[in-house]
Amino acid sequence: MPAFEHHVFVCHNTRPEGAPRRSCGSQGTTDLHAQLQKLAKDAGLGETVRINKAGCLNQCEHGPMVVVYPEAVWYGNVQPADAVAIVQEHLVGGRPVERLRVADECLNTKTCPHRS
Amino acid sequence: MPAFEHHVFVCHNTRPEGAPRRSCGSQGTTDLHAQLQKLAKDAGLGETVRINKAGCLNQCEHGPMVVVYPEAVWYGNVQPADAVAIVQEHLVGGRPVERLRVADECLNTKTCPHRS
Repeated sequence: MPAFEHHVFVCHNTRPEGAPRRSCGSQGTTDLHAQLQKLAKDAGLGETVRINKAGCLNQCEHGPMVVVYPEAVWYGNVQPADAVAIVQEHLVGGRPVERLRVADECLNTKTCPHRS
Repeated sequence: MPAFEHHVFVCHNTRPEGAPRRSCGSQGTTDLHAQLQKLAKDAGLGETVRINKAGCLNQCEHGPMVVVYPEAVWYGNVQPADAVAIVQEHLVGGRPVERLRVADECLNTKTCPHRS
């Protein structure tokens, strides 16, 4: 058995001002992280889920980024208001939030049409 | 397809001196992280593997901690010298390094015999 049924990694990476790639950490991820923690606790998920800080997940153009393991579901442009859907639909209900998912062809590639 | 065949999270959490729980980040994880990155690159793993910084993984008594997803393999007391085994045996060879694994019954529990 893995330690967590869902292990949620929230990118908090912050680059210096003027850096060529975006920073998830300057786009509200502190609030997002706190919301995920509060809502997971309120939902009674206790020790089965961990909301974890992460460094750069290397999908910066789609940030703020969140990845949920072991299912390897990647969410992009995640705002604090999206925390309720991630907790209720995915972590409680077991159904990933499709509207927030980054398409497979946009992950881990330098040729994604969303990258400038 | 997930973004990475193996996504390796290395805890870098550092607590204030005198804190009751241990800090992975004060036990050589910067060197460990650098070794994992270098050896993964040298092994030609390229974009298929990411060595990622993580905040506290909440298994502090077994640290320095590393977790590899999507397979959810947890390694404890990981030293910089262990990087070669993790890269060669696990990331290249596909076989987790058994001598470094934290036992399932020691994960995510307050009653583990290793916790004081």
